Amino acid sequence: MLQNLLERKRGIIFGALNDKSIAWKVAEKAKEQGAIFTLSNTPAACRMGEVIELSKRTGAELIPADATSVDDLKNVFEKSQEILGGKIDFVLHSIGMSLNVRKKREYTNLDYNFLGKTLDISAISFHKMLQVAYQMDAISEWGSVVALSYVAAQRTFDGYNDMADAKALLESIGRSFGYIYGHERHVRINTVSQSPTATTAGSGIQGFGGLMDFSDRMSPLGNATADECANFVVTMFSDLTKKITMQNLFHDGGFSSMGMSARAMEQYNKSFEGKE
Amino acid sequence: MLQNLLERKRGIIFGALNDKSIAWKVAEKAKEQGAIFTLSNTPAACRMGEVIELSKRTGAELIPADATSVDDLKNVFEKSQEILGGKIDFVLHSIGMSLNVRKKREYTNLDYNFLGKTLDISAISFHKMLQVAYQMDAISEWGSVVALSYVAAQRTFDGYNDMADAKALLESIGRSFGYIYGHERHVRINTVSQSPTATTAGSGIQGFGGLMDFSDRMSPLGNATADECANFVVTMFSDLTKKITMQNLFHDGGFSSMGMSARAMEQYNKSFEGKE
Amino acid sequence: MLQNLLERKRGIIFGALNDKSIAWKVAEKAKEQGAIFTLSNTPAACRMGEVIELSKRTGAELIPADATSVDDLKNVFEKSQEILGGKIDFVLHSIGMSLNVRKKREYTNLDYNFLGKTLDISAISFHKMLQVAYQMDAISEWGSVVALSYVAAQRTFDGYNDMADAKALLESIGRSFGYIYGHERHVRINTVSQSPTATTAGSGIQGFGGLMDFSDRMSPLGNATADECANFVVTMFSDLTKKITMQNLFHDGGFSSMGMSARAMEQYNKSFEGKE
Amino acid sequence: MLQNLLERKRGIIFGALNDKSIAWKVAEKAKEQGAIFTLSNTPAACRMGEVIELSKRTGAELIPADATSVDDLKNVFEKSQEILGGKIDFVLHSIGMSLNVRKKREYTNLDYNFLGKTLDISAISFHKMLQVAYQMDAISEWGSVVALSYVAAQRTFDGYNDMADAKALLESIGRSFGYIYGHERHVRINTVSQSPTATTAGSGIQGFGGLMDFSDRMSPLGNATADECANFVVTMFSDLTKKITMQNLFHDGGFSSMGMSARAMEQYNKSFEGKE
Repeated sequence: MLQNLLERKRGIIFGALNDKSIAWKVAEKAKEQGAIFTLSNTPAACRMGEVIELSKRTGAELIPADATSVDDLKNVFEKSQEILGGKIDFVLHSIGMSLNVRKKREYTNLDYNFLGKTLDISAISFHKMLQVAYQMDAISEWGSVVALSYVAAQRTFDGYNDMADAKALLESIGRSFGYIYGHERHVRINTVSQSPTATTAGSGIQGFGGLMDFSDRMSPLGNATADECANFVVTMFSDLTKKITMQNLFHDGGFSSMGMSARAMEQYNKSFEGKE
Repeated sequence: MLQNLLERKRGIIFGALNDKSIAWKVAEKAKEQGAIFTLSNTPAACRMGEVIELSKRTGAELIPADATSVDDLKNVFEKSQEILGGKIDFVLHSIGMSLNVRKKREYTNLDYNFLGKTLDISAISFHKMLQVAYQMDAISEWGSVVALSYVAAQRTFDGYNDMADAKALLESIGRSFGYIYGHERHVRINTVSQSPTATTAGSGIQGFGGLMDFSDRMSPLGNATADECANFVVTMFSDLTKKITMQNLFHDGGFSSMGMSARAMEQYNKSFEGKE
Repeated sequence: MLQNLLERKRGIIFGALNDKSIAWKVAEKAKEQGAIFTLSNTPAACRMGEVIELSKRTGAELIPADATSVDDLKNVFEKSQEILGGKIDFVLHSIGMSLNVRKKREYTNLDYNFLGKTLDISAISFHKMLQVAYQMDAISEWGSVVALSYVAAQRTFDGYNDMADAKALLESIGRSFGYIYGHERHVRINTVSQSPTATTAGSGIQGFGGLMDFSDRMSPLGNATADECANFVVTMFSDLTKKITMQNLFHDGGFSSMGMSARAMEQYNKSFEGKE
Repeated sequence: MLQNLLERKRGIIFGALNDKSIAWKVAEKAKEQGAIFTLSNTPAACRMGEVIELSKRTGAELIPADATSVDDLKNVFEKSQEILGGKIDFVLHSIGMSLNVRKKREYTNLDYNFLGKTLDISAISFHKMLQVAYQMDAISEWGSVVALSYVAAQRTFDGYNDMADAKALLESIGRSFGYIYGHERHVRINTVSQSPTATTAGSGIQGFGGLMDFSDRMSPLGNATADECANFVVTMFSDLTKKITMQNLFHDGGFSSMGMSARAMEQYNKSFEGKE
């Protein structure tokens, strides 16, 4: 069963918070598949017991960083190369946060400072990460970078607010940087558009429960779990997907290709029952 | 209010059956905007009182044709040019039919003769129309051709069956032929992807009522009507849209860009009420 | 020939700089079609002789505004309603600028202050405009808002730099706001993705000449001009397109649907001539 | 290095012709990864020395079949289950042929019998395969089916002719069937959109050499090879991608997300050299 898909690979995983996090699952799977890596998160998150526990369990050093700080990111790439003994083969960006969502500002009443932060934390941090790595030449030839996204980048979901715009920006940055990094150093950059997932971040979205149910009934295979997402991300980090770049890959049980399913329609139609 | 958007333009409108048909509405609007045109439909349809009535009311001659017959289509283009006194400026393809849907064959149990007919009637007829026109050089420079489609070409709707595949083929034919016809004679070819519409054809789709309701609540502007569709088609036939070609244009109240709306979600959530 | 498509309509046109500007052409066409409107641009632009000339010629008052300033935008919507005598029926956003492009910072060496400005000027200004209008209830039912975009939002063009990301963000904002504004007040919001156009802004992009040629040979109908774009925008402002919203509409001679044309391939193949 | 990604999995591989075929490479990789499978191709192909050689080398029995014949396909699924000892876990559809292309009929002068065959062989065969498997319940839970496609399904390439329409139909069938088969039995169905590949089929396309060069220079990672494609297909057959369905996945070195690359532009611009 040990497949060693990531044998001898060195990585950096941003954004593992607790065992619901996709990044957390990626860390576990990456270890199983033979990789060594470091973990990075905000200084506050790095002091949390769970994160420290993951670090111990996977033998991965924790490097605190504010992902909007170029200097912090430089430090992560420098330290990671030192610790892991060479250039980085894979990077996971699983970072997103909206103060407008948290503070319940409607999309028609955004605080523009908050919007700036949403974009900086959730999307521009990805550019900063890539620019830092590119300028330090910290990623090895054919290295693979993945950022997590959501279908709200293409279609509007009530309540997803400015995170939709942040995801659209994130995916664009993936393409724009993927072009150059691919061309010059064969580094590939993709985004994985995952089913709604009951992570700490996901659950903050307004009306999340109803959406999870609808999404599950719309998706022929049901919503994809964090665990399943991690499996897929592992294939994207492996040498078996070397020629895939600048893509947004839907890992969503088929949701993105659905217009209306029998299961969701059946449920929907129940809403009219006994109501002349 | 008379805008004369189609002043002095000659057209052919395929597929007007009754006053619910989009093609019917296009005929009415085209006349209002100053166009002259012929109408074509199957011989059976051309004997129907309503179609004869439309022909009289719009002063448009009826030319019966089986749209899968190259000879019949040649006849339509020849006669239309004679009657209208010159090359054709606009063509509407509003033709679609699936025997698998009519005979209630599931998509996992298709009759392949029926599938062949679905594709021939609903999609290949578009290629035949264009090939006939191209070979006869029957469409004038900057002429405009529109075929009606549905978002099922991109996303799967339960019960839409092989019509989804026919629409995908139709849209592809629009692009493929649009490239050549545009390049060589500046004829532009587009498909209009319209909201589900309660036409005679549309209503045949299984579970159509529930879908109409869902689609309406998902679309910020509600479902687009046949009348509104005709208005848009008129702009596509006018000289104001000369550089749009090879596109699939969504005229659907926003449905295609929606993931989940408040109105649809609210309705959906009612289905769980009072059910512990 | 007078079609009066915009009879009795009131508008605001942002971004007319000189007679190469798409916004300039839209102003001219809108007037021809019976609209009244105001013009807005930066204070510096509003002092330019050409802009003043356009203002006179179209009878449109000039209202200077920094489009990143919420207060300035409020002033534009307030004044425009006063001057035009009622709510606004159409708005054009034709604003974009990248300091990274101007200062020749490569995409792998972005200045993040500049990036912040690129996004604020070229994309977030669109949100600010819409939020201001929404909160003032300044746009009438079924009003129409258009922002100009470019296919770089979907595909990467060498040298287009952070403007690609800005356009992706712009289009996302169009969808996100289009959902709410459509749902609540039937205001429709779309982006028009235009061929590369030799405007003052466009010409600043590195390697623009070669791209224009390639784009022209790839597009079956050739590149669309600013004039043709304005015609299309007029249809989007008219009542004939009432049910189109949240769309990105390609007005590009077919470029976006092309993989490779005979004309571009022929030219490309010449590059190998006489070179064994 | 042995990863055993397909350990204990049973498959059917359609379309291996010679060592340039993607299906051939998939067979080799699948064997390396621990799978057992049968091979199927037309009776004529099955008599070819190379195909027999592959069969021997991979220990895979050859089952001749005309992929447009429902009976032949039934036989393939029956025999394969007998030979392999259980339900099928993965299926590769790598089948395509256009008589219009072969006989050099232009897209504006198609022979409609040929078009019918193009669609039947290249696309409807996929539906037949799936319908046969579905009705026999021949594919195991979470089984994975992949068909090979090309970006011509989305964008027009000069000379690709009616194969573009066939690929659009193929991808639509993948979605339509993927919905039902996923919903009912957790079978996932995807298409892989591969770089132009110098297979026997690919090379038949007119102007193929120039296109290969252009495509290579446009793709940041260069064109993907058949070998690399096979690696990716293996991941799609593995248990690591269980929640991906109804997708068209671009395995193309980034081509599909490119508008213009520096390498292609540089080459293009050479065509103007020394030509005032």
